[in-house]
Amino acid sequence: MANLTPNPSYSVTIRLELPNKAGMLAGVTQAIAGVGGNLGQIDLIEYTRHTTIREITVNAYSSEHADKIVQAVKALPDFKVVSVYDRTFNLHRQGKIRIESKIPLKSQDDLAMAYTPGVGRICRAIADDPQELYNLTIKQNTVAIVTDGSAVLGLGNLGPGGALPVMEGKAMLFKEFGGIDAFPICLDTQDTNAIIDTVKYLAPVFGGVNLEDIAAPRCFEIEAKLREILDIPIFHDDQHGTAIVSLAALFNALKLVKKSIEEVRVVINGAGAAGVAIARLLQEAGVRHIIMCDSKGILSLSRSDLNPQKQAFAVEMSGSLADAMKETDVFMGVSAPGVVTPEMVRSMAKDPIVFAMANPIPEIQPELIMDDVAIMATGRSDYPNQINNVLAFPGIFRGALDCRATTLTTKMYLEAAVAIAGLVNPSDLARDHIIPSVFDLRVAQAVAGAVSHTARTEGVARN
Amino acid sequence: MANLTPNPSYSVTIRLELPNKAGMLAGVTQAIAGVGGNLGQIDLIEYTRHTTIREITVNAYSSEHADKIVQAVKALPDFKVVSVYDRTFNLHRQGKIRIESKIPLKSQDDLAMAYTPGVGRICRAIADDPQELYNLTIKQNTVAIVTDGSAVLGLGNLGPGGALPVMEGKAMLFKEFGGIDAFPICLDTQDTNAIIDTVKYLAPVFGGVNLEDIAAPRCFEIEAKLREILDIPIFHDDQHGTAIVSLAALFNALKLVKKSIEEVRVVINGAGAAGVAIARLLQEAGVRHIIMCDSKGILSLSRSDLNPQKQAFAVEMSGSLADAMKETDVFMGVSAPGVVTPEMVRSMAKDPIVFAMANPIPEIQPELIMDDVAIMATGRSDYPNQINNVLAFPGIFRGALDCRATTLTTKMYLEAAVAIAGLVNPSDLARDHIIPSVFDLRVAQAVAGAVSHTARTEGVARN
Repeated sequence: MANLTPNPSYSVTIRLELPNKAGMLAGVTQAIAGVGGNLGQIDLIEYTRHTTIREITVNAYSSEHADKIVQAVKALPDFKVVSVYDRTFNLHRQGKIRIESKIPLKSQDDLAMAYTPGVGRICRAIADDPQELYNLTIKQNTVAIVTDGSAVLGLGNLGPGGALPVMEGKAMLFKEFGGIDAFPICLDTQDTNAIIDTVKYLAPVFGGVNLEDIAAPRCFEIEAKLREILDIPIFHDDQHGTAIVSLAALFNALKLVKKSIEEVRVVINGAGAAGVAIARLLQEAGVRHIIMCDSKGILSLSRSDLNPQKQAFAVEMSGSLADAMKETDVFMGVSAPGVVTPEMVRSMAKDPIVFAMANPIPEIQPELIMDDVAIMATGRSDYPNQINNVLAFPGIFRGALDCRATTLTTKMYLEAAVAIAGLVNPSDLARDHIIPSVFDLRVAQAVAGAVSHTARTEGVARN
Repeated sequence: MANLTPNPSYSVTIRLELPNKAGMLAGVTQAIAGVGGNLGQIDLIEYTRHTTIREITVNAYSSEHADKIVQAVKALPDFKVVSVYDRTFNLHRQGKIRIESKIPLKSQDDLAMAYTPGVGRICRAIADDPQELYNLTIKQNTVAIVTDGSAVLGLGNLGPGGALPVMEGKAMLFKEFGGIDAFPICLDTQDTNAIIDTVKYLAPVFGGVNLEDIAAPRCFEIEAKLREILDIPIFHDDQHGTAIVSLAALFNALKLVKKSIEEVRVVINGAGAAGVAIARLLQEAGVRHIIMCDSKGILSLSRSDLNPQKQAFAVEMSGSLADAMKETDVFMGVSAPGVVTPEMVRSMAKDPIVFAMANPIPEIQPELIMDDVAIMATGRSDYPNQINNVLAFPGIFRGALDCRATTLTTKMYLEAAVAIAGLVNPSDLARDHIIPSVFDLRVAQAVAGAVSHTARTEGVARN
């Protein structure tokens, strides 16, 4: 943890009263730097003859580090700490999304059209022709973000309440990057059949379902069954989002190291939802040599503890993750913090590619191996080459909603990965730039185009 | 139907090209008036040397009437009808609500706080202390509008899709009048237990549940069971919203006719969700003489076809609605269009009070009996004295959310009715003004205040 970079997710804002003398602020900033805090915004709040009030925002690398910074400031003579607040908590206080009317409701005329009696004609039109549901309601642009809270980020089984802040954040991303209205559905059940039934019952309002943070192997059955019974796209982002973006990054990484996708040896660590989906999509993309590991080591044919999804990737070889990594070209981690050592990376083939995507703390900190790898990527926004699902899911759903797709297909995922990779101009391709920025507005458009085009060629577009 | 007033719910906008000569527009407006169309907005779109393009909005009283108006305009010489559109359909084309982020998402810092890795700390805080769910997520201000589409407005069993436009409209009303984020949940099941389970599983995200347009008697069981198993307010608006506003209107109507609530004889026609709830609340408010009718007449002790909810109101008397209405003081209809005749109203006691609340077409058109009644109210926005649930539900939920009530109580409903009635100043009270306007912004505030005050006195407020 000591090697982590201070970042805004652990930032505090300290309101300070300082005497109005030269050098006072410098004393504070030195104290903060002395304990490793990273200064952000400094605002002047009030200025009087004798004192100044300032708000100083400081990035830390953990809650404990933030406390330490505050203590260092409090220990200084001459200053008064007026208040301290945690920026991330503050930002969540009211929840992060809201529901708004698209049309005004200020007169009896507005009411008579949007509600009774006018709305009755709209209801009848839909009852008479169910396809009108897409034309006359929010279904055309609305996605359910469904979780049971069983695998929240890298944090585990926090339950539906603990998952809600993530789902709200996801809804923000849907809107910001895909223009999609997404609503969090956090289910108070972890029973597979109950989840399937609930989503089936909810489906009329939604043009698509994004499954999120549902533990493996339950997630596979839920997705498969919902795909079978519903006529709207079902997407398990932890699986397919991660797989699409990983593949896009891999396409570009292989260009840089001049290796072919058919020849590379890939180790995937983590055989949950993301790991299995990555392995499946890599195979579709042409990868022939995959070794998967879980917390017990290589998925070996000799093991008797593998579920069917893991079994499909079992190999002759057996051993630990360290054994698996020797002489491999690519490591893809969707597992747990710190499970990879620098020695393991150094045992890889020439020009190793390491995607350490565990969130929020990677399998290995980039700082430890930057000189040993050809290309390094993580899931984090505060390092280069962020493998972030937000590059995929907004465009996947944008494309699917635009053409009213009845389902999603593997071909769409492959084309989406190609589209994402293609947005990095060959001349811009570099070891710290194998994937577009999440703020590159072309991404969702390109992915949406690839998805709706593929939907049409595959005959699953309604419109 | 011929007596209906033209209204905006059947309005069309006609785009016309007219020659640039005096009197041309007058010809059009005369033609429209000639077939009973009611002129609204007239916009000048384009003006050239020879021609003028105008958009004329006309209110009709039915779709057929709107067609007739368009035909009358098309029949005129010298004019060209460029296009005609149905305003109500146009307004629904994109759906009526959207989901927005409350906070910007424009930088890596924003992402790191609102989403990973920062959000992880928020998730943990909630997992550690479930009460934080109210403080750090949308639950504090979010309501589910749940329907199975089995009793949509007065239109019957249109299913979940056919119900969605109403639920979207409801969400608009929640926002506009209560500042509440409400989301439509239209369930593709009409099985009582499946609905109960689904709402139970959905509950973590919501601070309250508004049941809507669920048929009786299923709605009674669903509400009762959800009240039992969930620790958030459950409100069936068709029952309690209607009952609260009806009672508020009755309080004021009785002041005008100087009759006491304990003495009046009340006939309620319609023994579904609304009728039963009105009867129950009227009893709580002191009404002693209630005769309820359903489509087969008086709920009589001699009938063997009554469900338990109806049975509770069965009386010795038997007969038709017409029999029930003789010499009664108050008629409250929550039933079907046109089931009351002027003769039936004339058979009532002196100074009859008639609330004909069937939607969208009342039990009797006000035009037919304005001289025979002391006070007339309907559910419609285009007549005086609109008995509209929007006077109740936004304030009910506002109050419940503000104090984080664990449940709603009959006392809250009574106090809400008193609060609504109290907003009509005694000096303003008149036969066409017994209830505040839905656009009176004091209403939701007054109701919310009554609800949260009552919640505190009854010990069901969390905060």
